[in-house]
Amino acid sequence: MSKNLDIINQHESAVRSYVRSFPKVFTKAKKHKMWDENGKEYIDFFSGAGALNYGHNDDHMQEKLVEYVTSDGITHSLDMASTAKATFLEKFQDIILKPRDLDYKVMFPGPTGTNTVESALKLARKVTGRTDIISFTGGFHGMTIGSLSVTGNSMKRKGAGIPLQNTVTMAYDNYVDHDTLVYLERFLEDNGSGVAIPAAMIVETVQGEGGINAARFEWLKKVEELCRRWGILLIIDDVQAGIGRTGTFFSFEAAGIKPDIVCLSKSLSGYGLPLAVTLIKPELDIWKPGEHNGTFRGNNHAFVTATAALDYWKDGSFEKEIHKKSQIIYQFLEQIVADYPEIKGEVRGRGFMVGIASEVEGFAEKVAARCFESGLIMETAGPNDEVFKLFPALNIPIEDLQKGLTIIEQSVKDLVKEPVTN
Amino acid sequence: MSKNLDIINQHESAVRSYVRSFPKVFTKAKKHKMWDENGKEYIDFFSGAGALNYGHNDDHMQEKLVEYVTSDGITHSLDMASTAKATFLEKFQDIILKPRDLDYKVMFPGPTGTNTVESALKLARKVTGRTDIISFTGGFHGMTIGSLSVTGNSMKRKGAGIPLQNTVTMAYDNYVDHDTLVYLERFLEDNGSGVAIPAAMIVETVQGEGGINAARFEWLKKVEELCRRWGILLIIDDVQAGIGRTGTFFSFEAAGIKPDIVCLSKSLSGYGLPLAVTLIKPELDIWKPGEHNGTFRGNNHAFVTATAALDYWKDGSFEKEIHKKSQIIYQFLEQIVADYPEIKGEVRGRGFMVGIASEVEGFAEKVAARCFESGLIMETAGPNDEVFKLFPALNIPIEDLQKGLTIIEQSVKDLVKEPVTN
Amino acid sequence: MSKNLDIINQHESAVRSYVRSFPKVFTKAKKHKMWDENGKEYIDFFSGAGALNYGHNDDHMQEKLVEYVTSDGITHSLDMASTAKATFLEKFQDIILKPRDLDYKVMFPGPTGTNTVESALKLARKVTGRTDIISFTGGFHGMTIGSLSVTGNSMKRKGAGIPLQNTVTMAYDNYVDHDTLVYLERFLEDNGSGVAIPAAMIVETVQGEGGINAARFEWLKKVEELCRRWGILLIIDDVQAGIGRTGTFFSFEAAGIKPDIVCLSKSLSGYGLPLAVTLIKPELDIWKPGEHNGTFRGNNHAFVTATAALDYWKDGSFEKEIHKKSQIIYQFLEQIVADYPEIKGEVRGRGFMVGIASEVEGFAEKVAARCFESGLIMETAGPNDEVFKLFPALNIPIEDLQKGLTIIEQSVKDLVKEPVTN
Amino acid sequence: MSKNLDIINQHESAVRSYVRSFPKVFTKAKKHKMWDENGKEYIDFFSGAGALNYGHNDDHMQEKLVEYVTSDGITHSLDMASTAKATFLEKFQDIILKPRDLDYKVMFPGPTGTNTVESALKLARKVTGRTDIISFTGGFHGMTIGSLSVTGNSMKRKGAGIPLQNTVTMAYDNYVDHDTLVYLERFLEDNGSGVAIPAAMIVETVQGEGGINAARFEWLKKVEELCRRWGILLIIDDVQAGIGRTGTFFSFEAAGIKPDIVCLSKSLSGYGLPLAVTLIKPELDIWKPGEHNGTFRGNNHAFVTATAALDYWKDGSFEKEIHKKSQIIYQFLEQIVADYPEIKGEVRGRGFMVGIASEVEGFAEKVAARCFESGLIMETAGPNDEVFKLFPALNIPIEDLQKGLTIIEQSVKDLVKEPVTN
Repeated sequence: MSKNLDIINQHESAVRSYVRSFPKVFTKAKKHKMWDENGKEYIDFFSGAGALNYGHNDDHMQEKLVEYVTSDGITHSLDMASTAKATFLEKFQDIILKPRDLDYKVMFPGPTGTNTVESALKLARKVTGRTDIISFTGGFHGMTIGSLSVTGNSMKRKGAGIPLQNTVTMAYDNYVDHDTLVYLERFLEDNGSGVAIPAAMIVETVQGEGGINAARFEWLKKVEELCRRWGILLIIDDVQAGIGRTGTFFSFEAAGIKPDIVCLSKSLSGYGLPLAVTLIKPELDIWKPGEHNGTFRGNNHAFVTATAALDYWKDGSFEKEIHKKSQIIYQFLEQIVADYPEIKGEVRGRGFMVGIASEVEGFAEKVAARCFESGLIMETAGPNDEVFKLFPALNIPIEDLQKGLTIIEQSVKDLVKEPVTN
Repeated sequence: MSKNLDIINQHESAVRSYVRSFPKVFTKAKKHKMWDENGKEYIDFFSGAGALNYGHNDDHMQEKLVEYVTSDGITHSLDMASTAKATFLEKFQDIILKPRDLDYKVMFPGPTGTNTVESALKLARKVTGRTDIISFTGGFHGMTIGSLSVTGNSMKRKGAGIPLQNTVTMAYDNYVDHDTLVYLERFLEDNGSGVAIPAAMIVETVQGEGGINAARFEWLKKVEELCRRWGILLIIDDVQAGIGRTGTFFSFEAAGIKPDIVCLSKSLSGYGLPLAVTLIKPELDIWKPGEHNGTFRGNNHAFVTATAALDYWKDGSFEKEIHKKSQIIYQFLEQIVADYPEIKGEVRGRGFMVGIASEVEGFAEKVAARCFESGLIMETAGPNDEVFKLFPALNIPIEDLQKGLTIIEQSVKDLVKEPVTN
Repeated sequence: MSKNLDIINQHESAVRSYVRSFPKVFTKAKKHKMWDENGKEYIDFFSGAGALNYGHNDDHMQEKLVEYVTSDGITHSLDMASTAKATFLEKFQDIILKPRDLDYKVMFPGPTGTNTVESALKLARKVTGRTDIISFTGGFHGMTIGSLSVTGNSMKRKGAGIPLQNTVTMAYDNYVDHDTLVYLERFLEDNGSGVAIPAAMIVETVQGEGGINAARFEWLKKVEELCRRWGILLIIDDVQAGIGRTGTFFSFEAAGIKPDIVCLSKSLSGYGLPLAVTLIKPELDIWKPGEHNGTFRGNNHAFVTATAALDYWKDGSFEKEIHKKSQIIYQFLEQIVADYPEIKGEVRGRGFMVGIASEVEGFAEKVAARCFESGLIMETAGPNDEVFKLFPALNIPIEDLQKGLTIIEQSVKDLVKEPVTN
Repeated sequence: MSKNLDIINQHESAVRSYVRSFPKVFTKAKKHKMWDENGKEYIDFFSGAGALNYGHNDDHMQEKLVEYVTSDGITHSLDMASTAKATFLEKFQDIILKPRDLDYKVMFPGPTGTNTVESALKLARKVTGRTDIISFTGGFHGMTIGSLSVTGNSMKRKGAGIPLQNTVTMAYDNYVDHDTLVYLERFLEDNGSGVAIPAAMIVETVQGEGGINAARFEWLKKVEELCRRWGILLIIDDVQAGIGRTGTFFSFEAAGIKPDIVCLSKSLSGYGLPLAVTLIKPELDIWKPGEHNGTFRGNNHAFVTATAALDYWKDGSFEKEIHKKSQIIYQFLEQIVADYPEIKGEVRGRGFMVGIASEVEGFAEKVAARCFESGLIMETAGPNDEVFKLFPALNIPIEDLQKGLTIIEQSVKDLVKEPVTN
């Protein structure tokens, strides 16, 4: 075993996780590729669980970052004003918000996904004076107590060590059937339902951790409509599905809805650096100064790379590229499901946020493990890890995308042939 | 007004805070100095609220970082193994833990202070099967719901929008008198007190946000003893007081205690980059894989700079330097209090974590504002912002330290002369 | 206005309620009749909201009570042993439990419905080590914080002034359609649903306050089956539906289920005196002595009347009588709905626990008010008081039952004729 | 063993408690005496834990009750108006409230102590819009979740099976020293204390279950003053200490304070029948109709006996009688402590609510057990049952009071002589 792996296994807490699925020590990474300490190359269909939508160490961002660092640009500034922050804010307005006719105040809540979610929940409660939040089955929103309270996974929830409160879970789209919102609506309109009108609903348009469940656009529209009818705030948690992952900058664009609050993180900095923002409709921005804060809310390195990353969105070409490649992926997956009925597979997802759920227990994990051996990094998702999940960089060349898909097909084929050895 | 400041005021959420006290746009920073966009130079006695104990853009760390970035070192790796992480872990053992006879597993809980605190609280509850945490008056531990529940500040607590639960606040040292632990002990030993034996006590050895309150060593020892007697875990939140701020790497070293769990963040990366660790006694490390996680828990840039920063601690010379300069600061503060009785001042703190609490309402804020005009950055602390707080970089040259102190004295002198204009 | 009514309106808290619907001062009552201070006679179709299933001041119980009181029988005994309690316990075994093949320990938790519910919830949590309780839409279980947490009515819930916790509301039978348990099952079997396996489900077989909703027997059986599959305790709250109200002593007998815990109160004492018991399967009776208590858990007057009341159940004749009369009532209600389509009515309920829900806003309340003028006491139920609710004494003579029904029909007829005056 | 005791031990839940200390079956009771089924006579120094301040089956009340029952007076009336209720309300105004210059609305919240406490907490939260309640170490307020949250006993609290929330426990008078309110005051005035301004403080003037701790009048006055300063409601839980037990009708009269809300139950009905009221300052009576309710809130038998009981308070003679006898008791206890230093005793309490705390483990329980053998019923109190508690009927003749005291002294004497046999 590698000395470095030894060190990690010896000194890092038992909570470590991905190192168990991918037991190699990684050293270098570029674009959609990674190399371990032995120089072995991997195609990355994992992309930092959605934090590396533009791949690793993108040249343009790298250049800007090095330039900034070497010029002694201010690194850490809390929420003092910095040139790097102002530049990001301006460009984010010009390239992202204005063309989409969106008007949001930008909050920097601390540089992680759970932090933007916590700030969104706080603000929704403050604005409405209500305490409950409606979340959905299969939702994942973070590991700190506020975010964990709206997260579905029972193992993670038990980790809290305390009952999680002030939240009500409702059935996500297709949870049982297409009528899940009939239930939700009934609960809201009935004074005797035991479910109070909540401060907000928090929704992922496509659930990543929950098993790559994509809500239908009409379902999302109906959720928005229910929110409007009862004065409930609509929070879209776009931490994983946002920044192009489903095909558009915001995942909710195609559904034609306008959330009250949007949570962004993961691929926002573009370079894998910690950054998060909470977007807030101006009329809801009633925070007192410092009412929510965090030491690393002014991470200027991330501002610099995030600003560079916005260049991808200057015109519509990137969206078209994503669309084209996502069709290739989707067709591939449909073909797999058709060709290998033994895996009892179902294609899930939207855009570059897709996977196959297999009813065969343990199959998805085996596929991921086999792919890793063959030089492809890919993770599983879902409450029972029943989905293998394709998260390539959005800018992966078609050729390497195809290589990755081929590895997956070979792995499936091999596994299907193998005698069952439970 | 500056165009950049305009952009920020227009687009950033009302929650922004420090930009209101320091209404300039900062561009460049080096060591203990910062420059705004107009080229004005400032001495930094703020140090990113304790995140920049080694000053800005330290040459050694900068060099290592640029080298890493330009060589396409892996940036974002979740909790996969990376060379940068292994190197950090090994050096942290060798330079920090072993020489201090400390044996801890290292958890990477997400790269912020609140995240390490949340992970510590979860683990304490999991280990003990109990739900309550005892925290202390004046404590500050973070803004997400779990950490906020053990934070004292009422404005921040109200920001939660929900009742904060599973926590009991006890009086910190000197809160009323020297006997605060007599009360705590009585509450614990009495079956009828209404206070259950908690999972843990979470303590700062010196409270930063709470008003630069330094607990006596004997008080800390007694807290540890109470924890041992009832099987309560002792969590030291060393996010602000740690990494040399009070004179030693861990703030609790001089008190002679050995916490069960230690929370570190802020200056851990050395360079102002987001990083946090939770140190856990090996026998308590009963986490399931992934039971607590976070997208940015593998911030390799921060591993690189944190590793470089450990060089400061290779021998005892840095501690001696801190000690020498902290005496200068302390004597200066004592002199101020003596020379200007009008400010009704009291010197607070330990090491480089010091300040003056003034009973004159609004005085501390005026001093900080006046210093800013004169080119010194310094913040206030305490429930009513009654303390002005000196947080210079630990490696500031004595000459510039003196310059900063002189600005403070001049500001105090000027303000004392001014007619009261309430 | 009456002097006595003046006194009450002046001195009693604004929380008083029924006195507003029935603004007369009652003095005397016998069987199914009541008299106000002016000597006006009323037929009672209200029966103390189910606390007077045998009518008022039943001769047999009255005789036993007076005999006991005049002989200086011990009145108040906490949970010391008393002859009256032993006699009740023995007869309850012989007449109620044994013939129904039920084996329960009897807990006296304090003499009210909310108290038996609170004790049931505590015990379920203690036995399972879990915190959550699943309750159902439209459920009513009491006004103290534990019971209120599982109660559906939003006005009552808001009265708590704090968020109500550790409970999940699921859809009762027919809430949206016949498939409500498909949802419940899915929530339980899915590790990612956000709904933990609860300590217990608490169910009313027919919901009184919730609007006279009767669950189908197959629905109840399926609930029991789900409880068995996941080791969830089944609590039947039979406070209102029990003691004969739906046709059998326990309301769940006909459904063929055996709850783990049963809550009884209201008509248990038979005479309207405060009494409650919690029935517990012997293997679940793991209480520590005094772990739940209450000053009035030994109300011997109530033991005496409750013992006398059991004579009604010595053989099957009383059940037959209830059955016969309940058919009369049911046919009457069906006829009303058919004859007066203007009221958009729907017959609800089972046995002597029935009513008509009217979609015409305010109609049910008008019927009740009109009946009261005509000498019939009847209340409304449901989240919007949309149901008028027939709760005659089970032993009402058919002749007087018919009189009451006639008053109802006349009231409906009159109201339907009236011009709408909204 | 008795057949009746067999029945109880076999069929009653393990939660039964007093029957274990007093393992006899009681049949008859009159005034301050009880008889078991074998005809053995006991002097009752227990008085139903304070529910029988006038003794058992008081002749005057008994006569009124029988008269009412035999005349078919309405028994159960929810909160409909009844003659019996109006009569009680009027007389309560005339004899109790007016002469004491108290102006309260009377709420009937359900007939038990825990129910009046739950209603008081709800109302305090509703009036102030705040969630927290400050309770005190050693406090006992009831067993339902709301009341249990403000109760100190850890065994009882654990019985909840869920964390108890929205409450903060502060040190009662003399908990550590005389300065407990200095701490409380500091917690309230400090914005950083972590303790929010609560909706209410709930206080017993003398703690019964908590170990017969009597707060000094100046302490109570200071509590009231703190409440006034911060707009906190003052709730006096007079369930056990009220109705003459400490020498005056309300226990707080002598302290010269005027609570915002008063909780009464136990001896209110005078006869041991379930009854409770919540007294509310008129300006705080903002309940909506039915916002808190309960099936047995109109227990007319209890109204009848409670009305008769008020005759004891028509003039000051009863208070004088209590005062005189309480001096006899107090002197006796002081003498015991002085004469038997081996028991390391301390006299506790006020009026007829007194006892001796012994530092000798298990001693108090032994005294109580020994007394029971000798024909005296007396219980223990305190978190470790370290207090034996004298609760004779207030109207006990001096002769029988002396008999009881003699039994106690003899028991103490016998036990002190016995060889230690741990």
